[in-house]
Amino acid sequence: MDQTAHEPIRDIAHLGSVELLTPRFDKSLWYFRDVLGMEVVHSAGDSAFLRGYGDYASTTLKLTAAANAGPGCIAWRAASMPALERRAEAIGRAGLGIGWNEGEFGRGRSYRFHDPEGHLMEVYYDESRYRAPDHLRSTLKNLPMRYTARGVNVRRTDHLALMARDVAANRRFAQELLGFRLSETVRFENGAKEIGSWLSPSAVHHELAYVADASGASGRLHHFSLWVDNREDVLRAADILVENGIFIEAGPSRHNNSQAFYLYSYEPGGNRIEVYSGSFLILAPDWEPVVWNEEERGTGVYWGGALPDSFIEYATPDVAVTGTAQKGVPVFDPR
Amino acid sequence: MDQTAHEPIRDIAHLGSVELLTPRFDKSLWYFRDVLGMEVVHSAGDSAFLRGYGDYASTTLKLTAAANAGPGCIAWRAASMPALERRAEAIGRAGLGIGWNEGEFGRGRSYRFHDPEGHLMEVYYDESRYRAPDHLRSTLKNLPMRYTARGVNVRRTDHLALMARDVAANRRFAQELLGFRLSETVRFENGAKEIGSWLSPSAVHHELAYVADASGASGRLHHFSLWVDNREDVLRAADILVENGIFIEAGPSRHNNSQAFYLYSYEPGGNRIEVYSGSFLILAPDWEPVVWNEEERGTGVYWGGALPDSFIEYATPDVAVTGTAQKGVPVFDPR
Amino acid sequence: MDQTAHEPIRDIAHLGSVELLTPRFDKSLWYFRDVLGMEVVHSAGDSAFLRGYGDYASTTLKLTAAANAGPGCIAWRAASMPALERRAEAIGRAGLGIGWNEGEFGRGRSYRFHDPEGHLMEVYYDESRYRAPDHLRSTLKNLPMRYTARGVNVRRTDHLALMARDVAANRRFAQELLGFRLSETVRFENGAKEIGSWLSPSAVHHELAYVADASGASGRLHHFSLWVDNREDVLRAADILVENGIFIEAGPSRHNNSQAFYLYSYEPGGNRIEVYSGSFLILAPDWEPVVWNEEERGTGVYWGGALPDSFIEYATPDVAVTGTAQKGVPVFDPR
Amino acid sequence: MDQTAHEPIRDIAHLGSVELLTPRFDKSLWYFRDVLGMEVVHSAGDSAFLRGYGDYASTTLKLTAAANAGPGCIAWRAASMPALERRAEAIGRAGLGIGWNEGEFGRGRSYRFHDPEGHLMEVYYDESRYRAPDHLRSTLKNLPMRYTARGVNVRRTDHLALMARDVAANRRFAQELLGFRLSETVRFENGAKEIGSWLSPSAVHHELAYVADASGASGRLHHFSLWVDNREDVLRAADILVENGIFIEAGPSRHNNSQAFYLYSYEPGGNRIEVYSGSFLILAPDWEPVVWNEEERGTGVYWGGALPDSFIEYATPDVAVTGTAQKGVPVFDPR
Repeated sequence: MDQTAHEPIRDIAHLGSVELLTPRFDKSLWYFRDVLGMEVVHSAGDSAFLRGYGDYASTTLKLTAAANAGPGCIAWRAASMPALERRAEAIGRAGLGIGWNEGEFGRGRSYRFHDPEGHLMEVYYDESRYRAPDHLRSTLKNLPMRYTARGVNVRRTDHLALMARDVAANRRFAQELLGFRLSETVRFENGAKEIGSWLSPSAVHHELAYVADASGASGRLHHFSLWVDNREDVLRAADILVENGIFIEAGPSRHNNSQAFYLYSYEPGGNRIEVYSGSFLILAPDWEPVVWNEEERGTGVYWGGALPDSFIEYATPDVAVTGTAQKGVPVFDPR
Repeated sequence: MDQTAHEPIRDIAHLGSVELLTPRFDKSLWYFRDVLGMEVVHSAGDSAFLRGYGDYASTTLKLTAAANAGPGCIAWRAASMPALERRAEAIGRAGLGIGWNEGEFGRGRSYRFHDPEGHLMEVYYDESRYRAPDHLRSTLKNLPMRYTARGVNVRRTDHLALMARDVAANRRFAQELLGFRLSETVRFENGAKEIGSWLSPSAVHHELAYVADASGASGRLHHFSLWVDNREDVLRAADILVENGIFIEAGPSRHNNSQAFYLYSYEPGGNRIEVYSGSFLILAPDWEPVVWNEEERGTGVYWGGALPDSFIEYATPDVAVTGTAQKGVPVFDPR
Repeated sequence: MDQTAHEPIRDIAHLGSVELLTPRFDKSLWYFRDVLGMEVVHSAGDSAFLRGYGDYASTTLKLTAAANAGPGCIAWRAASMPALERRAEAIGRAGLGIGWNEGEFGRGRSYRFHDPEGHLMEVYYDESRYRAPDHLRSTLKNLPMRYTARGVNVRRTDHLALMARDVAANRRFAQELLGFRLSETVRFENGAKEIGSWLSPSAVHHELAYVADASGASGRLHHFSLWVDNREDVLRAADILVENGIFIEAGPSRHNNSQAFYLYSYEPGGNRIEVYSGSFLILAPDWEPVVWNEEERGTGVYWGGALPDSFIEYATPDVAVTGTAQKGVPVFDPR
Repeated sequence: MDQTAHEPIRDIAHLGSVELLTPRFDKSLWYFRDVLGMEVVHSAGDSAFLRGYGDYASTTLKLTAAANAGPGCIAWRAASMPALERRAEAIGRAGLGIGWNEGEFGRGRSYRFHDPEGHLMEVYYDESRYRAPDHLRSTLKNLPMRYTARGVNVRRTDHLALMARDVAANRRFAQELLGFRLSETVRFENGAKEIGSWLSPSAVHHELAYVADASGASGRLHHFSLWVDNREDVLRAADILVENGIFIEAGPSRHNNSQAFYLYSYEPGGNRIEVYSGSFLILAPDWEPVVWNEEERGTGVYWGGALPDSFIEYATPDVAVTGTAQKGVPVFDPR
């Protein structure tokens, strides 16, 4: 876990967008647009493209109709055009590459690949900045879009957590091929079993987490997370979710690892969505990953209590629906 | 202002520490320790070394007894040892270097220099991480020190704002020699007069600001800023300051540029200190600096009202005390 | 100011509703419904009837088209039917009565009267409780209506402040004929000049304030105030107001008397509206009114700074519009 | 449950103080003084007298060393001297009276009695208002004592919840003999089984709750509750409790009945203490009690999840310690 190498790879700037698949497209769209307050900026085919009011890019969430819930393509923005080329070359050399892809809405070409678990990802650099239409222009010149005060009104994309049968392999991939920093990790059995790892290409605590999937299924999503500025906004979000009939799985409460203030619900399509604030920035160039053992990790809830079993067992696609699960990997409560 | 160069300098990781000079050392120490809730970790000579509970480094504030208030040495942490060498070399070549210096408390050697305005700065890399004594150990393994709940209990250092007779020259220095991103800038007279610029080596909106000094004095400090996690913490801080007899100059309120939620007071030595939350992260690798003209900038307060005249005129050392001021530069309300 | 009489009058339960006159009815309706998030429950003639989601009564705000902005009828709910009779009898005996009136929307008959200043008021008891239609039913059985998360989404009516040429006379009226408690008062010139008084029939700090009107006009409104549950909600309200082009006159900040966290804006019709939280409950049966002199009162802002001149000079109807002002009474900044 | 009688009894003004018994006096004192931030104003015999910074009375919590944790004397302040006499007479006539008692610290004489369950209570009227010593004087003239910013710094006493073998009988006692309003009640088995009732003499939602005790023990305390002004203060309190090694039993989260934002911990003596904010005022003179059945009540947590079993089973004195329990009454999760 040595991250003190003097000249680290810093070719990925940040998480660009996440595609979510949903078997209930209209209801999912209602959830993100009317309940969470995101803005729809484009529609094409079976997909809608959304954004938070504080996202600088045109779109950070792509919602796509599909037979089952789960993750679609996860896009990372490169730090520069040469950085994009370098990552494409390195990933391709590692045998995980799929190839160059024509750009999505608002973007130039991307290089597509799989992580070791099989999640679909891409890296891109060219991107058209969001320009708000008149009715969405903010009175703040440095805010890409006005705060519309509709529903939860999440500010921006923050991170996602993916399930993996082999957390260590995927974590190493993110460190070595994407250049991510390992922020925190949970290791059971005297460090032998890697249960969850939180990684980031930026000062954000984690933009990507890998957590152990014991279901036997592959390529699943644990959750996708959207940021609000204050803990009070998360509390308010909980009220809004309940008033809209949305099931809250856990929170609002505070995790011990990441220190984040969390609120987990399921969007109508089935994907777990987090409304999130707090946590902390990591600016240290020689950050030592925080390692938690069984006892230190506890329930994962800082203030007491425990996360429900579903938080460990449920992910999308849901194996109870798709019937693809086989047992065999230690189960863990991820972030 | 082109920042889209494909391979930017990223040799500075973040603001490491700020030294503040104070003619009323004991009172200043009381302010930072008992009112703001910082922890004293070391004393040496005329100086005390303090930290916020969330700072990963041993110390982020050095308080030094002196005849006049003002800034002492401003320390930047390099991203690596080669990065330190590169910056030292480049700054030296630019004729701003002073030379290598034996390390301060908890740090290895540093390279000292002046910015064009004459503020004393240094870059360093080696640093001993903070290890809390038992009574200050947090129940959170990823928190360097417990939250003591004493006074305001600021979490960490955020940024500082320096006065400059020539903002543009100092801003260019920060961009070109330190590799900082220009986040926002205020330009009057159709862009001819640079009134203030907000810069950062990291995803933090600004870790350094330069604002126009019309007093004729040089090398002054506008303010030093400490972070709390939520706006409610800033409101609570206001109550605590007033109950302790500390004069509040401005806030709590919200700036338009940076979007920050601010609260400015003077520590007993005279330096302006901000308790701060909000603002926004900048992760875009091709960030376009937000440029504000006279009309857009307005009073600098997003919600209405204005900052007091002192916010423009007062800085440390105070020219009313030191008598060194000469007029000649356009005045401006900085952040 | 002796309020320790052993058996006080407690015939008024609370402020029932406020009628606001507006020369820009449609715009005012937009402000209260879309920006503040109140619900329209009824329309009749030139009036719309609105409510906050937490108000137990059907309506607490009546908005009426009129030539000039200002207060319409201010309605107080009696504690019982006998209490209503007693107040009607006492007010009538005092020569301030107008007479019995057929009930407004959702209410039984009321007794109408003027306060000494000439503001129109009424007392009523019978009232139909609000029953939310299905789409507005809350998931909380004890919440009259769901939290719709539209705009500021104020919870309920809190209080109003009226201008008076003779504050003392109106304050005595409220104490002696309505049975209100005097919570706080500002007295200048060694107590000789009563500048403002804050009164209440309930544990709420003040449901009615009288503040000195120096304009020569009569029967004016200083502001009408709507409650939100947390200070953070007030901060959020400020963002929403600005994004909707609403001018913020003062705040968010904290008053010294009442301790309230305030935010004042003008609705498009011209009436000053406060979004409000904090303050404190008064449960002491022998409450001693807090008396503030010139020095103690200061600017009325706890954290520093001052209220703008308009806060003292502007009220509705606006004398600059109606041209009815004559000078003669000391001016004061009220709450 | 008819509460619309035209002339209700309003002889009790509010909860005056609560006495808590503790087998670990020094540790309990540390909890209330250093962790919750209350102020010790007096000591006598085995007792310490404490207060919140916003309490107008000298003391609102009496902490007394004893063999077992549990409630001591619960004191209610009368609305006037005649009101005190009336309550004493009525309670005496009902056969629950103990007799007149010389006043506690800072108070005149009181009338002592038992509720039907056997909890010791008293009513008093005369009381010396708190006068802060210089070092505790607030800069707010209407605040009895400065905000010291020590620990959680609770503002004031809010309410207490008592266990009762027969909730209905004790609820009727509070309504009929103390004149309390029934705010909410939980009734199972088609209303036949009263599981919990929330009552108040004031606009505060509840100052007293009775909840079913199935242990067979009598006269027990469920919890004592202290107020902070904002939900964010409750979140902050949770951090402080954990950093001080205090076990959090439940919360921060939101109840459905009362709507309150709660945080329950055990003080070192064993008594359950709540840090509390939110809920809502009841000003309606004809309030209809909100009645919850099994399904509506659910887990008692608005946002989802459940309260732990201990929340239902544990009270003080703890029957596991005192060994006095016998079974026989339906169990319930109270507030």
